[in-house]
Amino acid sequence: GQEGKMFPRKSAASYTDSSDDETSPRDKQQKNSKGSSDFCVKNIKQAEFGRREIEIAEQEMPALMALRKRAQGEKPLAGAKIVGCTHITAQTAVLMETLGALGAQCRWAACNIYSTLNEVAAALAESGFPVFAWKGESEDDFWWCIDRCVNVEGWQPNMILDDGGDLTHWIYKKYPNMFKKIKGIVEESVTGVHRLYQLSKAGKLCVPAMNVNDSVTKQKFDNLYCCRESILDGLKRTTDMMFGGKQVVVCGYGEVGKGCCAALKAMGSIVYVTEIDPICALQACMDGFRLVKLNEVIRQVDIVITCTGNKNVVTREHLDRMKNSCIVCNMGHSNTEIDVASLRTPELTWERVRSQVDHVIWPDGKRIVLLAEGRLLNLSCSTVPTFVLSITATTQALALIELYNAPEGRYKQDVYLLPKKMDEYVASLHLPTFDAHLTELTDEQAKYLGLNKNGPFKPNYYRCCSSSSFLLPRAWGTRAGRVEGTGFNPTGPLRRYQGVSG
Amino acid sequence: GQEGKMFPRKSAASYTDSSDDETSPRDKQQKNSKGSSDFCVKNIKQAEFGRREIEIAEQEMPALMALRKRAQGEKPLAGAKIVGCTHITAQTAVLMETLGALGAQCRWAACNIYSTLNEVAAALAESGFPVFAWKGESEDDFWWCIDRCVNVEGWQPNMILDDGGDLTHWIYKKYPNMFKKIKGIVEESVTGVHRLYQLSKAGKLCVPAMNVNDSVTKQKFDNLYCCRESILDGLKRTTDMMFGGKQVVVCGYGEVGKGCCAALKAMGSIVYVTEIDPICALQACMDGFRLVKLNEVIRQVDIVITCTGNKNVVTREHLDRMKNSCIVCNMGHSNTEIDVASLRTPELTWERVRSQVDHVIWPDGKRIVLLAEGRLLNLSCSTVPTFVLSITATTQALALIELYNAPEGRYKQDVYLLPKKMDEYVASLHLPTFDAHLTELTDEQAKYLGLNKNGPFKPNYYRCCSSSSFLLPRAWGTRAGRVEGTGFNPTGPLRRYQGVSG
Amino acid sequence: GQEGKMFPRKSAASYTDSSDDETSPRDKQQKNSKGSSDFCVKNIKQAEFGRREIEIAEQEMPALMALRKRAQGEKPLAGAKIVGCTHITAQTAVLMETLGALGAQCRWAACNIYSTLNEVAAALAESGFPVFAWKGESEDDFWWCIDRCVNVEGWQPNMILDDGGDLTHWIYKKYPNMFKKIKGIVEESVTGVHRLYQLSKAGKLCVPAMNVNDSVTKQKFDNLYCCRESILDGLKRTTDMMFGGKQVVVCGYGEVGKGCCAALKAMGSIVYVTEIDPICALQACMDGFRLVKLNEVIRQVDIVITCTGNKNVVTREHLDRMKNSCIVCNMGHSNTEIDVASLRTPELTWERVRSQVDHVIWPDGKRIVLLAEGRLLNLSCSTVPTFVLSITATTQALALIELYNAPEGRYKQDVYLLPKKMDEYVASLHLPTFDAHLTELTDEQAKYLGLNKNGPFKPNYYRCCSSSSFLLPRAWGTRAGRVEGTGFNPTGPLRRYQGVSG
Amino acid sequence: GQEGKMFPRKSAASYTDSSDDETSPRDKQQKNSKGSSDFCVKNIKQAEFGRREIEIAEQEMPALMALRKRAQGEKPLAGAKIVGCTHITAQTAVLMETLGALGAQCRWAACNIYSTLNEVAAALAESGFPVFAWKGESEDDFWWCIDRCVNVEGWQPNMILDDGGDLTHWIYKKYPNMFKKIKGIVEESVTGVHRLYQLSKAGKLCVPAMNVNDSVTKQKFDNLYCCRESILDGLKRTTDMMFGGKQVVVCGYGEVGKGCCAALKAMGSIVYVTEIDPICALQACMDGFRLVKLNEVIRQVDIVITCTGNKNVVTREHLDRMKNSCIVCNMGHSNTEIDVASLRTPELTWERVRSQVDHVIWPDGKRIVLLAEGRLLNLSCSTVPTFVLSITATTQALALIELYNAPEGRYKQDVYLLPKKMDEYVASLHLPTFDAHLTELTDEQAKYLGLNKNGPFKPNYYRCCSSSSFLLPRAWGTRAGRVEGTGFNPTGPLRRYQGVSG
Repeated sequence: GQEGKMFPRKSAASYTDSSDDETSPRDKQQKNSKGSSDFCVKNIKQAEFGRREIEIAEQEMPALMALRKRAQGEKPLAGAKIVGCTHITAQTAVLMETLGALGAQCRWAACNIYSTLNEVAAALAESGFPVFAWKGESEDDFWWCIDRCVNVEGWQPNMILDDGGDLTHWIYKKYPNMFKKIKGIVEESVTGVHRLYQLSKAGKLCVPAMNVNDSVTKQKFDNLYCCRESILDGLKRTTDMMFGGKQVVVCGYGEVGKGCCAALKAMGSIVYVTEIDPICALQACMDGFRLVKLNEVIRQVDIVITCTGNKNVVTREHLDRMKNSCIVCNMGHSNTEIDVASLRTPELTWERVRSQVDHVIWPDGKRIVLLAEGRLLNLSCSTVPTFVLSITATTQALALIELYNAPEGRYKQDVYLLPKKMDEYVASLHLPTFDAHLTELTDEQAKYLGLNKNGPFKPNYYRCCSSSSFLLPRAWGTRAGRVEGTGFNPTGPLRRYQGVSG
Repeated sequence: GQEGKMFPRKSAASYTDSSDDETSPRDKQQKNSKGSSDFCVKNIKQAEFGRREIEIAEQEMPALMALRKRAQGEKPLAGAKIVGCTHITAQTAVLMETLGALGAQCRWAACNIYSTLNEVAAALAESGFPVFAWKGESEDDFWWCIDRCVNVEGWQPNMILDDGGDLTHWIYKKYPNMFKKIKGIVEESVTGVHRLYQLSKAGKLCVPAMNVNDSVTKQKFDNLYCCRESILDGLKRTTDMMFGGKQVVVCGYGEVGKGCCAALKAMGSIVYVTEIDPICALQACMDGFRLVKLNEVIRQVDIVITCTGNKNVVTREHLDRMKNSCIVCNMGHSNTEIDVASLRTPELTWERVRSQVDHVIWPDGKRIVLLAEGRLLNLSCSTVPTFVLSITATTQALALIELYNAPEGRYKQDVYLLPKKMDEYVASLHLPTFDAHLTELTDEQAKYLGLNKNGPFKPNYYRCCSSSSFLLPRAWGTRAGRVEGTGFNPTGPLRRYQGVSG
Repeated sequence: GQEGKMFPRKSAASYTDSSDDETSPRDKQQKNSKGSSDFCVKNIKQAEFGRREIEIAEQEMPALMALRKRAQGEKPLAGAKIVGCTHITAQTAVLMETLGALGAQCRWAACNIYSTLNEVAAALAESGFPVFAWKGESEDDFWWCIDRCVNVEGWQPNMILDDGGDLTHWIYKKYPNMFKKIKGIVEESVTGVHRLYQLSKAGKLCVPAMNVNDSVTKQKFDNLYCCRESILDGLKRTTDMMFGGKQVVVCGYGEVGKGCCAALKAMGSIVYVTEIDPICALQACMDGFRLVKLNEVIRQVDIVITCTGNKNVVTREHLDRMKNSCIVCNMGHSNTEIDVASLRTPELTWERVRSQVDHVIWPDGKRIVLLAEGRLLNLSCSTVPTFVLSITATTQALALIELYNAPEGRYKQDVYLLPKKMDEYVASLHLPTFDAHLTELTDEQAKYLGLNKNGPFKPNYYRCCSSSSFLLPRAWGTRAGRVEGTGFNPTGPLRRYQGVSG
Repeated sequence: GQEGKMFPRKSAASYTDSSDDETSPRDKQQKNSKGSSDFCVKNIKQAEFGRREIEIAEQEMPALMALRKRAQGEKPLAGAKIVGCTHITAQTAVLMETLGALGAQCRWAACNIYSTLNEVAAALAESGFPVFAWKGESEDDFWWCIDRCVNVEGWQPNMILDDGGDLTHWIYKKYPNMFKKIKGIVEESVTGVHRLYQLSKAGKLCVPAMNVNDSVTKQKFDNLYCCRESILDGLKRTTDMMFGGKQVVVCGYGEVGKGCCAALKAMGSIVYVTEIDPICALQACMDGFRLVKLNEVIRQVDIVITCTGNKNVVTREHLDRMKNSCIVCNMGHSNTEIDVASLRTPELTWERVRSQVDHVIWPDGKRIVLLAEGRLLNLSCSTVPTFVLSITATTQALALIELYNAPEGRYKQDVYLLPKKMDEYVASLHLPTFDAHLTELTDEQAKYLGLNKNGPFKPNYYRCCSSSSFLLPRAWGTRAGRVEGTGFNPTGPLRRYQGVSG
């Protein structure tokens, strides 16, 4: 349910951003220390700052570093020419440099006009990556940057890594012939995946695409585990409130809702849940939450949190009935869940009390505390831990490897889920972080269970609770093949980590 | 993973079982108060005791009682002739009398030679159900009882409700022609479902079959929620141990393992987990459990619990290394997980200290405490709450209704999962127990989400965490149709419960 | 708040109790294998069964076993002649045999006419302890047994270990001169301690007395940790109910209430709390419980639990308003909390459905489920873990040692709490069970904190949360001296356990 | 253990602080709108900003607002002339204006040269309070401000409210005669209380003093409940780390340690505990934490947190052995717990990566992450919720009322704890925030328990877990009288809140 977690970490480092340099990067002449000018960033001189942030990120992205080590022997992306369009952050930089180490050539643009960390972009440009991105691009800049990535003499991409589908869209529109050489698309976002399914349905998808948004591991981390922490972080940073004893209603008991409820319950809040699906509702009951309709508790709660993916879950009528000082925020999807537009009426006064915090004041003096204007709290008001981004980035890297190396015919012109074995592999690459020791099946046990000792341990259509209550999955899984026969054997490095104990 | 939860509740009522009546029921002439003798039970005079147990069970099975109420208007099982073979307990009796109220005729045998509650069987016989079952049947008695259910003049079943597949097997073997009139089979157990899939694979399944074992609701309750409570209950009743501060290793982090770990952690135990699947392993890490190999902790733990579904997870070598007084038990599957056979060697002394509790004593005096001889702890040493059995029984009733009313052609000669909507309906029927109020979608919201307001809210292939680590699901879901067009509209009573609040 | 935890463990072993031997033990001529007949038990031949139970208990009472080991060198109770009056169970036997190993002579009677385990009494008699106790004594038997302990030719007690004050009372009444030689009284129960404070207040206490009921360690275990587990156990064994989703109100948020609330919340119940003390009430809020008056929730809850120590907390009016099937039980104090007497009216029908479980049925058919007739649930319907009893028994043993060895003048004719250092020592003796490694202060740190490296680490008047909401402590602590100068150095064995790690 | 929580909330409002106005406030001529110039603040024109912050704080300080309402009838501080020296924040302003509403005249200085919020000081000055404080005072300024509060013609204080003892010290030193008219001192901090006990011991304390630091309610909130939240907040804001799966060692299991452990366990961390006190150690075991020595786990943990109050708990030797990226922080006391000085050696490189975050880098590249240079994490890197400050401020107000109204002779020249009944009253004033409904004793119950229906419900020496492992309480409680006879009846407003329900 949580889209676009690859949002930039708000760096606390003392960036030199506040320069009074107002010249557009497009009008500047810049060269990196090796003399290349095949990039366009804010200020190449910020490279050193960016490099430090990348180095810090590397320490928390062990899986990509493990892939790099392995790549000293083989280069599964040798010959790959990847064009990418994602948020440009320290974590993306670690991904890009890993793809480079695996043999790929990369060209990169930003998928969001605000999210680029200029220092990181500079560091990438300095080390030779053609990067076209800066913070505060205009819409025209945005498309210009994308175009500079693909429209190059003597270089044509054969792989696409996209986040939101804009890059894919641009190539479809401007350079449809390019798809003849493209082996596949890897897409990260809900929106981008949706676009791909529509293309597929319309029979217009002309290369295989991998939906990495719906891998089990990524979903669990983006939704349950990450939100369990970011709900507390987001509320604390914006309001300094105390959780103990507070009455909270959480709308929706999918993965995001489950994470929010568990965290707040643990901190001593009293949590109510609303649901439309009786199965999720029964789970809420068994987990110890009163299942109510929003109307029943709206007058008494201190906090309202939406995690449904639905629209207008909190209406003006609800807002009118809330008690003074009630906090309202959205952890769900987009900005549709709270009917914020209904609050833009003359009788209500808006007061911006802090960044991301508005007091909306009723004529009688009652005020409600609206966070992030109803947009996603966790993206607006808290940070996404590098570890979560590491899982996303590793999944992207493996999807690129799989599509690039797949034998002819394994993937058709359709949208695929990451094969189960690959998903398990991503998980296994992150276990060493926790000094976690996986048990290996004996031959006898593998035979008893009818499993391969190296996995996959679950069938392709197994998705562990990954459907939050609003994400309607598509017809997946039936086509995704196994990993056999890939030159790149994913179980190698995994096993290396397992010899530690008993 | 947990098979056969429909095991009899150990009644604490003062049954008159210990009579010295050694005559076989088959040799007795018994009549109920209406003069019928179409049954065979231990002692028809025990009916009154059994009736009280049934009445108590009724209070905790609200969903079936709701179906009965609804049946005052329509009889969706009118004309159905159901032959059943299940454990015969107070909860089964509530199911049978519900099927009767819905219009069905029933004949019933026991699926297990020990599990029949004689008083309940007597009560059913007294109220006119042809029941053939008693506690302590011989194998010959077992098949004789089944045969008495199906081999009747002037009555031929058109529906089968089976638990384990023995009834289905008997009809296949003895009366294959009977299948011509049979509209479908509803099967409850893992074993029975396995047999059906094999038949299907071999092209020998000649009627549709419904696998109710793998419905989301049933799985969640049988595995996660029920085991979360029964692990504590089973350990306490057998050993009176204190949980606080104890070191425990739980083998397997599927649903059963998750339930065991959560409960013990909450009681102050220190819990370690072993896993083979990296995705489940990563979940264990994020839930705060050290992931280890069994060897690493075997010397230090106070309790070893298996929940893998695998075999020989605890070997003689492990048992040799455990510390004095270590408790060993199995929550997983069958009796294969602990290699109990390896303990039957001359140098070890077995001492039965309580029912279901053995001390196995090493030559040096070390003793380990083996519970239930390695069989399922929760079935052997704790009780299954009526509420869990209610979910199973309701699922069975709805599956019978669905198969019996399905229009020609909806179901082929294959094995089906319960349609998602039915699964949701079972859940919704149990919400009133918790005074839980479901939210209804507005028209606008339903349109936005692309959902029918009455569900299903998730696709058929959605299974929420239901795969414990060992249960390998089959190729399901692709064939299961929707419920539209059934005469029996399952959303009626559900909605009635929802008007309570705001 | 929890009185008298030293209740016998309900042994599951196959005792030979059900003999039809109706002869009073007082009329029997019995001799143990060494020819002694200075005892009076049910049947000396049951000694072997009792010995096995004692051996099992020894394994879970490591602290007493550690004291025994230590006693191989010195005998701090050499010369002590202890007369005791407690429940006679396997755990008491371990205590008695430990006192013997420490040099004491003992004579023992039971403090309760029902609680004696005959086999254990036989085992003690067989190994030479003059024990006078059996299950099912008459009141006359009860006092006869006590008298046989103290009224002996050529033997006069110099220490008293009492549980309830009956033994002390008997000596005061019958043999007041005996107090001239008595060095002190150790009393375990709330009632007995209350009697001693009254004696003290009246100026009639003629020897020092040690109140071991109020030691921090004992209180924490008897109340918080033990009740956290026994509330679940007691409810499950009596009702087989499922905890998940149930609404529960807990009356009283002292230590017992805190334990009950924590356990039920962890199992998925929704818990409400009532309190009279605003400080405890605020704690309940911060721990995530709705603080209500009983009236507010009485119609909706599934379970009512009292832990207040107060009287008539649940009145007939409350009982009249409960919903059908509501469970009512008492974890608090005595049997006053629920007004059970008010249910003994003609219009209500009582139905005993299981041992300790009554259905009380209203004219309209509503039934409430009353457990243990309002007496303490945890004593009536669950077992007390040996580990908890071990803490009590160790505290008693150390109190005897302290009083017996105290230099002239340290203790006056007053009631004392166990010195803090002794309390800490009891705790430290139980740490090895958990393989727990205590950190030792460096000299520099001890100096910085102004503490002795061996403790006490808290002042004498420090009581960690030990006051449950109803137990009004007395004027303690101001007189209790330190342990310096005792021949028996309690820090010895403690430190021995601490060298294990770093 | 946590000293000085009254630290200023870091306001996120857009203060106009960054003015380039470098003139010292002492050199400015300022008047408020009523023409008064009896104050000295940074800039009186900032009053409006400050007023808004005060109004927001008022909404979260219901207890003080309740006192104000009550004061419309009676003025328990009529005639009181209070001189105060505390942090000057929005919450302090609410306290000061409450004291004013209760009838007192106040003059105020800051207890810390950095902590004054200039806008709040301006708002207070604007509304007529003689305030002498600004952010960034020199030491000379500091004492000058204090002197301006006390050294006034025609006005002499009769009450002191101090935080740290500097104000008290100044009066002792400069104006000892002033004490003749002073009725009492209320002191908030550990340090200030310590100084008072020393004065008392030396026989130099010439007025009664009230130690409000050690009230049960304040302690519980400052330590357990506040730290449970601030440990997560502090770690997240500084490092953006993910808690799930992390290994953490918490040194010390007093109230602060208990709060940290509970929070991190709930977020999925694996927590180890070190302790010196066997009773706290046993609690850690029962709460499910492995009790270790620091050495045993120092190589494997991801986070080290100190909460002991001791010194050099984390030594250079420990720091040398930590793994790369290990985070080290202090939640305990002062800055002694981590031996930060030992890290100031030439071979180690310090790198400031963010505010309050240093990387200390070993020659081999290993870096540890040191937060707040070993000072208190929760004060340096997170905010203190207004609700916690509300409890402190209410306690201070009631202590002033009690001392000011106490009849002659109730308090001697000594240090007193807040009477139990007052402490309960503070708690009760905060219950309405949680819509919490206290139960009232019936006459019969009060008689049974031997309690007054209005409390106190616990004896004066009852302190619920308030002793964290390092805070050694003083000789309290024996002298503190009851509240009877005060003109101001504290139970009035409390009871008013209780009529809401049943």
